[in-house]
Amino acid sequence: MTTTQNIYDRPEFFSAYSALPRSVHGLDGAPEWPTLQAMLPALAGLRVLDLGCGFGWFCRWAAEQGASRVLGIDVSARMLERARAETRVSTITYERADLEGFVPEPAGFDLAYSSLAFHYLVDLDGLLARIAKALPVGGRLVCSVEHPLMTAPALQGWLQDEAGRAAWPVNGYLDEGPRRTDWLAKGVVKQHRTIATYLDLLRRNGFGLMQLVEWGPSEEQVLAHPEWSTERERPTFLLTAAERI
Amino acid sequence: MTTTQNIYDRPEFFSAYSALPRSVHGLDGAPEWPTLQAMLPALAGLRVLDLGCGFGWFCRWAAEQGASRVLGIDVSARMLERARAETRVSTITYERADLEGFVPEPAGFDLAYSSLAFHYLVDLDGLLARIAKALPVGGRLVCSVEHPLMTAPALQGWLQDEAGRAAWPVNGYLDEGPRRTDWLAKGVVKQHRTIATYLDLLRRNGFGLMQLVEWGPSEEQVLAHPEWSTERERPTFLLTAAERI
Repeated sequence: MTTTQNIYDRPEFFSAYSALPRSVHGLDGAPEWPTLQAMLPALAGLRVLDLGCGFGWFCRWAAEQGASRVLGIDVSARMLERARAETRVSTITYERADLEGFVPEPAGFDLAYSSLAFHYLVDLDGLLARIAKALPVGGRLVCSVEHPLMTAPALQGWLQDEAGRAAWPVNGYLDEGPRRTDWLAKGVVKQHRTIATYLDLLRRNGFGLMQLVEWGPSEEQVLAHPEWSTERERPTFLLTAAERI
Repeated sequence: MTTTQNIYDRPEFFSAYSALPRSVHGLDGAPEWPTLQAMLPALAGLRVLDLGCGFGWFCRWAAEQGASRVLGIDVSARMLERARAETRVSTITYERADLEGFVPEPAGFDLAYSSLAFHYLVDLDGLLARIAKALPVGGRLVCSVEHPLMTAPALQGWLQDEAGRAAWPVNGYLDEGPRRTDWLAKGVVKQHRTIATYLDLLRRNGFGLMQLVEWGPSEEQVLAHPEWSTERERPTFLLTAAERI
């Protein structure tokens, strides 16, 4: 079994990550959250699995929406420690596990959710197969990953085109595999996959695509945060809703 | 009704296009053809519609495969003139029409095919709705377009990243609409759409996605054509197979 690089438990990464808006303000600090939220089914009465739950923001929100059971999984002991400290609801449990090997209880859930975790996994195929077994027909998978345009480049960082406009330097798009970046800490490894591969993995594991969103900030969000304007030049996240068929 | 820019009937464009490998050698001159071909159903006995048939290479190949009827549609009088001159089979007919308004015979076909035509259309939504009506449940749509990474940039043309590696300058990805390029002739207008939008258009019009390919030359093709090596840095075409549901 491959072991995920557990960057979140490295002190320098953890403290930098803890200072991000999404760590301080929770779901409302994540600009893609309203779009991802709209892709979710009504949660009342559902058994919810959160893969890569971090500080547990989504778990607590799901419980507030009336989920009957919420299980949050994360590889980071530090994140789970804070998640547990901030959770007062008995419908939520947290479990420390590496998603590369985690086996959810067969037929144990109605919704699998994952925010920005799958791009760390080497064997996403295997995890999706196990998620499929954990869901009934009609069960949902809603997840986000870094958009392949973000993970592809050998060197991330804006260039300028000949007219001086910001241009995102895409290369290596068709060559899938690990990419080493210096995001919050040195040597963070993410797995680059094309959009076509994400869709193939879903289909191969018994999921029918319901919606795909290539997310970047809306024009309204850019008006409120002018410093994000360049982020409309290329999408940052890939959001997916799929149904177990 | 919007009228497609009929660049193929401009003398300078037509002569440049006629000199391309895919115009001289037909399907075998198109490096994406083996991949697209593998996405097609067996054609024996099928009624086939080719949207943007050009010189008729695919129409003649479909007839050779045993298609019972082949209708090729194109807006270019010059291309249809050559298509007709090179066609000796009575199962093939050609018709001049603008795809923006073309209405295929309801329930008249089993397979709709289109190679590198849809990215010229403003109202692709309308055409897909009319194609859907022309196909039975289980009927197929197999098509290629320029990949959104090709159509997005304001200025096409390779840059170099900080390590000197070729980088494709992506910007404007989330802002869909016309792009003016100087490909074979000045001021060719193509419509940029994201992958998410192509998938939405299919679903909204009653198609289930079977396969999506982000096509670039294979490593074997690059060995045979070293001048294509940069083309593996980002995909050039988006190939789609869908089923009428």
